Amino acid sequence: MTDKEFFKVTSLRTVLELARIFPCVAEEILPLNQCVGRILSRDIVSPINLPEFNRATMDGYAVQARSTFGASDSMPALFRIVGAVEMGEVPTVSVQPGEAVRIATGGMLPDGADSVVMIEHTQALDEHTLEVFKSAAPLQHVIEIGEDFGTEEQILAKGSRIRPQEMGVLAALGQTHVAVYKQPTVAVISSGDEIVPIEQTPSLSQLRDVNAHTLSGLIRLSGGIPRYLGIARDNFDELYGFCKDALAQADMVLISGGSSVGSRDFTIDVIEALPEAEILVHGVSISPGKPTILASSEQKPIWGLPGQVTSTMVVFHVMVRPVLEKMGGLSEDRLAREHEVSAVLSRNLASVQGREDYVRVRLVRQENQTYAEPILGKSGLIHTMVKADGLIKIDMNSEGLDKGTPVKVVLF
Amino acid sequence: MTDKEFFKVTSLRTVLELARIFPCVAEEILPLNQCVGRILSRDIVSPINLPEFNRATMDGYAVQARSTFGASDSMPALFRIVGAVEMGEVPTVSVQPGEAVRIATGGMLPDGADSVVMIEHTQALDEHTLEVFKSAAPLQHVIEIGEDFGTEEQILAKGSRIRPQEMGVLAALGQTHVAVYKQPTVAVISSGDEIVPIEQTPSLSQLRDVNAHTLSGLIRLSGGIPRYLGIARDNFDELYGFCKDALAQADMVLISGGSSVGSRDFTIDVIEALPEAEILVHGVSISPGKPTILASSEQKPIWGLPGQVTSTMVVFHVMVRPVLEKMGGLSEDRLAREHEVSAVLSRNLASVQGREDYVRVRLVRQENQTYAEPILGKSGLIHTMVKADGLIKIDMNSEGLDKGTPVKVVLF
Repeated sequence: MTDKEFFKVTSLRTVLELARIFPCVAEEILPLNQCVGRILSRDIVSPINLPEFNRATMDGYAVQARSTFGASDSMPALFRIVGAVEMGEVPTVSVQPGEAVRIATGGMLPDGADSVVMIEHTQALDEHTLEVFKSAAPLQHVIEIGEDFGTEEQILAKGSRIRPQEMGVLAALGQTHVAVYKQPTVAVISSGDEIVPIEQTPSLSQLRDVNAHTLSGLIRLSGGIPRYLGIARDNFDELYGFCKDALAQADMVLISGGSSVGSRDFTIDVIEALPEAEILVHGVSISPGKPTILASSEQKPIWGLPGQVTSTMVVFHVMVRPVLEKMGGLSEDRLAREHEVSAVLSRNLASVQGREDYVRVRLVRQENQTYAEPILGKSGLIHTMVKADGLIKIDMNSEGLDKGTPVKVVLF
Repeated sequence: MTDKEFFKVTSLRTVLELARIFPCVAEEILPLNQCVGRILSRDIVSPINLPEFNRATMDGYAVQARSTFGASDSMPALFRIVGAVEMGEVPTVSVQPGEAVRIATGGMLPDGADSVVMIEHTQALDEHTLEVFKSAAPLQHVIEIGEDFGTEEQILAKGSRIRPQEMGVLAALGQTHVAVYKQPTVAVISSGDEIVPIEQTPSLSQLRDVNAHTLSGLIRLSGGIPRYLGIARDNFDELYGFCKDALAQADMVLISGGSSVGSRDFTIDVIEALPEAEILVHGVSISPGKPTILASSEQKPIWGLPGQVTSTMVVFHVMVRPVLEKMGGLSEDRLAREHEVSAVLSRNLASVQGREDYVRVRLVRQENQTYAEPILGKSGLIHTMVKADGLIKIDMNSEGLDKGTPVKVVLF
């Protein structure tokens, strides 16, 4: 056997399939105002009708629609103003044919009224007399009882992300507290004799721990809580100790560096020695990111990531993030949608068959079209990531992509 | 004068121009690990070369490229293995023609070597003898001194957002602390006699305070810190007190509800009574969102937002967010880019000329194309916002958009 046959690569799709074994984190109950961006851990069913009364959606006058039929600028319909709806109070007046009641947006429609005429289409001649210049349809500018959400209706689904509008819905239902998935905790271990903490001035041949800080940012933007454990020397016992410590406090473990073949491949030995350990993947058919390891210990995923930070970022975006978000409860249909945008490739791009190539691109918007412009330069340079807005994939069976091809961009 | 001429509308573009008067918030110095998502308040210039030594980007052997010329599978070049580079140490060996030194990714190239041969293209016959199966170009799999960033080079610009890759760059430079803009504080005041706190069961005709919670989420996702002040009754003195309080503690004030014409338009009177007050805008030519107010008091923006939450969300996304992000230091070129994606309209859409119409859409991805599918239903219904992924704009001078038109979607 030669050095050439050093690991059997797995396809990205298989990696993501294998990662389905990892369970979701537990739920916690949070005050509503801390929930934005979090993932619902239960379906939300409305206990009430929303709205609970027929509500005006414009400032104007509540009327019976049929009293306005035929009204126009040249032939206004005349109404008798019989009162006004006080905001937050049940109207004391009711509306008969030919009568109008002043109402503001959000007000409760009085009995008898079935429509609201916008104030812009009226003119009050005096305190009691109103001209209406336009026909109103029944239910115009009105939201009916239960029209937004009906009693017992499922409104929001477990696994969906709470955006500002979902916070609005939860507020409308009076949910002062909400059940959400906990944020997964992710331990980050840097490994390598050449790595020094960032506060230290590296001597020649040493490198500051760029990866841990990049990974911490990535974890946070993926809804996780990073726990940086520090730098393990290239030494079995030290890395083993870090891993045991990581498993005790985190839902996922990332080991940065040390996953490539060579003098440092004892990472695999360390992982194999952990409790209930199983190596699921050693080598993935993507570029960059081939030497990636995925293992499981005590039902928790342990990733061995490439030492090169630019490769690590790609691996994180295409493999670690989907697994992390799924463990954090995000439903699979959202997983696929949240980080991708469509664009058109700005130039021809060559590729090697037999692996998925990930190419950094900058998004350039012209008129209503978005172009993905490949970033040139060696893949190991950090500045290519700083210039980039995202990644495009060139399929395993493709020799490249032509200029003008529609592409999906995984956003950074 | 009739009720029709109740305010003079301003174009959205003018609103954003007027808002340029509001100054950026101050800066603060934060530990690097708290910086993801924040905005740089100073340019970052590299004090060092990055890397500081010629670095291998693959596992393999450091060689002189010319010793490999002509090597192939059938005619391997023979090398003498003269040592190995220890990670994190300056190599003690140097490389002569026909010599190879084992090196791992991230290692420092020994003197004399100008290229790295990937381990996959080699075979070690014994401890001292190596076959190389492929020609290597000079500087192959090597990053040269200063190739990523050179000394004194500007790397990151003031006003850019710190993503994980920027955290990596800052870590590489040893910046344990970073100067960033503070997060703008935004006071949220709800107004209206019909509004009750969400923990309270509304009596018929009352509404829970949906807007404040929606706005808090929006503010947080735009980089601000929401401060919810509570619900002001429809009463000059009460609203004035809330506003004074808001100005004392916040960089921006949002008053939700009370900005429409009608019984509640004393919001304008309250704002005008504030110190150094100036009404900049009362009415914007967009739909929904027409009754929006923008005023200034003590150089701080005060917004009067529509009472209907769905309108308020639109106004926030198209006006409040850009102003808030700009006050938070985000550079204008990023402002325009961060929240927009391209899509293709899935059906014909009619519009009214003379105003900008904002239509809620759902993004549907098919193959590599993203379609914007308009959400039907009355604009006041919250569930239209829950179903939507974003907004598209129909221009003031357009009567509508045809199916298949490329559109920009402002993401929610």
